Amino acid sequence: MGLIMKFEIPTTIYQEVNAVKNHASELSALGKKALIVTGKNSSKANGSLKDVIDALSDNKTEYVIYNKIEENPSVEQIMVVANIGRTIGIDFVIGIGGGSPMDAAKAIALMIKNTDSSEQVLYQNIPLDALPVAEVPTTCGTGSEVTPFAILTRHDIHTKQSISHRIFPMLALVDPKYLKQAPASVITNTAIDTLGHLLESYFNTKATDYTKMLCMCGMKEWAKIHDAIRGITPNEEACEKLMFASSLGGMAISHTSTALPHGCSYYLTYEKNIPHGKAVGVFLPGYLASLTKEYQPEVIQILKVLGFESMEIFCDFIRQTIGTVELKEEEIRLITNQLLEIKEKLAAVPYTVTETDIFKILTYLN
Amino acid sequence: MGLIMKFEIPTTIYQEVNAVKNHASELSALGKKALIVTGKNSSKANGSLKDVIDALSDNKTEYVIYNKIEENPSVEQIMVVANIGRTIGIDFVIGIGGGSPMDAAKAIALMIKNTDSSEQVLYQNIPLDALPVAEVPTTCGTGSEVTPFAILTRHDIHTKQSISHRIFPMLALVDPKYLKQAPASVITNTAIDTLGHLLESYFNTKATDYTKMLCMCGMKEWAKIHDAIRGITPNEEACEKLMFASSLGGMAISHTSTALPHGCSYYLTYEKNIPHGKAVGVFLPGYLASLTKEYQPEVIQILKVLGFESMEIFCDFIRQTIGTVELKEEEIRLITNQLLEIKEKLAAVPYTVTETDIFKILTYLN
Repeated sequence: MGLIMKFEIPTTIYQEVNAVKNHASELSALGKKALIVTGKNSSKANGSLKDVIDALSDNKTEYVIYNKIEENPSVEQIMVVANIGRTIGIDFVIGIGGGSPMDAAKAIALMIKNTDSSEQVLYQNIPLDALPVAEVPTTCGTGSEVTPFAILTRHDIHTKQSISHRIFPMLALVDPKYLKQAPASVITNTAIDTLGHLLESYFNTKATDYTKMLCMCGMKEWAKIHDAIRGITPNEEACEKLMFASSLGGMAISHTSTALPHGCSYYLTYEKNIPHGKAVGVFLPGYLASLTKEYQPEVIQILKVLGFESMEIFCDFIRQTIGTVELKEEEIRLITNQLLEIKEKLAAVPYTVTETDIFKILTYLN
Repeated sequence: MGLIMKFEIPTTIYQEVNAVKNHASELSALGKKALIVTGKNSSKANGSLKDVIDALSDNKTEYVIYNKIEENPSVEQIMVVANIGRTIGIDFVIGIGGGSPMDAAKAIALMIKNTDSSEQVLYQNIPLDALPVAEVPTTCGTGSEVTPFAILTRHDIHTKQSISHRIFPMLALVDPKYLKQAPASVITNTAIDTLGHLLESYFNTKATDYTKMLCMCGMKEWAKIHDAIRGITPNEEACEKLMFASSLGGMAISHTSTALPHGCSYYLTYEKNIPHGKAVGVFLPGYLASLTKEYQPEVIQILKVLGFESMEIFCDFIRQTIGTVELKEEEIRLITNQLLEIKEKLAAVPYTVTETDIFKILTYLN
């Protein structure tokens, strides 16, 4: 057999109601002056921003708030915020929200720490440290609170791309109650993103018994939250499961990375402004179908774990929850060419990917 | 439901054949001068000591070897070795072997770092740092390579006790091939210790969905290695599973701690020189039986996961692999009194423990 397994989860995770309040001293211990990085509205609406402010204030830790992180933050915005942080002497960064502010927090922490560096270093393969980062997730898909990834919009090459540096948060404070304020569409989209993480990590050349354990546990939880994904407001227990599955998916892809559906998604988000979860989800049935060439029994088993008796039922679930995306011939060609350039996504797929495979994945639901 | 979950695995783990060689640079990066802490014979016989020496030499890292760690190392021995380390300027510690040298490595790393402290601080509740620690396990029970625990013999109070400080190793290099050289009795005893970790963590007041995931995965692996536990020399795949289950058990008890069987075991080891695995294992059937008061369906389910169709079959397996221990009335009284003093072990049990419960656990197999 010859197992080769790495297992690395450097982030300390607390999942509980009032996680920020209960672990305020650990949060404050990360530094003397925090930069809080969040979006315009949701962290105000769901109480997470207030919880973080209270936690820092109670421990007499200074903070500055930047609350204008855009959806799919750009390299340009990272540099704007990092320059603010550099001038005011920030020594740790707290991301609050979905993947956008949490990923931004990591990239900003890197650029503040490396105070004389320009944006070029974000995508260079040189080892660099970052300021300590804490994350407070308020959606249930990205898993960014436990991953080392920071995916930014690169206008220079018209897509989204993960920075070269791996920045694990020190602390993830996961409070399921914030989800109660999230719009149904956000829960649907982000829970489908989680599904992508779990599936793309489970069927992955880098999968190990450790990562499969995380995925299997996450998929069993995911199977219990179909109702919330269909738009029914989740109760406390469902919120817990949504967040738990999301963190497990994040831990899994921290080891394996994602595969083709994520690789295909960046075009849809960049060019057609389709939310990340939907942009991933529309390719999941096709990806599973492409795996049946070599892994039919495993695909059938995993669909059952997820609560779907057949591929058809899974396809219907995806169509009903996030809909489909029709791609023109020209778009299919563009996505295919873009994907064939992302070597690490191709290498993650446990079969040899052909253009025909990609075509089928892109058009499977239609 | 109100989940309260902490998940913390600060140790980076590599499990693979040639783990030490393959990650020699990461091992050497922990410092400039290593103290290698091991026992007299096994690390020489199974090649692990040579692998570590080669790894350090190849990276021009200095080292000193202390190869006289005793079984169940005492506080006195820790101080002897720490004083050697203090005088020669050690800046990281590598433990090689079973639980004894690996636990010793942590306590020694603590005492070298706190160079002016006496042995009293080992059992004081004051926050102290330790030197970086790496662990190379060569048995399959302790899980010490991923736990923050260091259990030492305390001659002053005639028992074994975990030090007050939590010292997570930075690096665990888990190479299953070392197990091939282990005597059958060592594999049996340590794999039964792993079973104790998995069961005592699964049924535990501090258990969470995270720790149950680790235990469930570990128990499924454990079910596949009955033959090795019965004394049949394990092949490569069995060695992998033995080590994997052991690390999973370690991660689980890092969060929950152990419960009554471990609490009962210390007397047997200190007073009767019974190996740790056997000293734990003889109380596992009784502990499971005591849990059926409130958790009968779960106990039956878990026995099935472990590959036992009934409690009787499990008891027979324990009798056949490690035998039993007859306790005199006087000994039962002593163990009971000792156990009633270990508040954290009692608090870990998911029912209110009475003296009758303890009596039944101590005598169940006879």
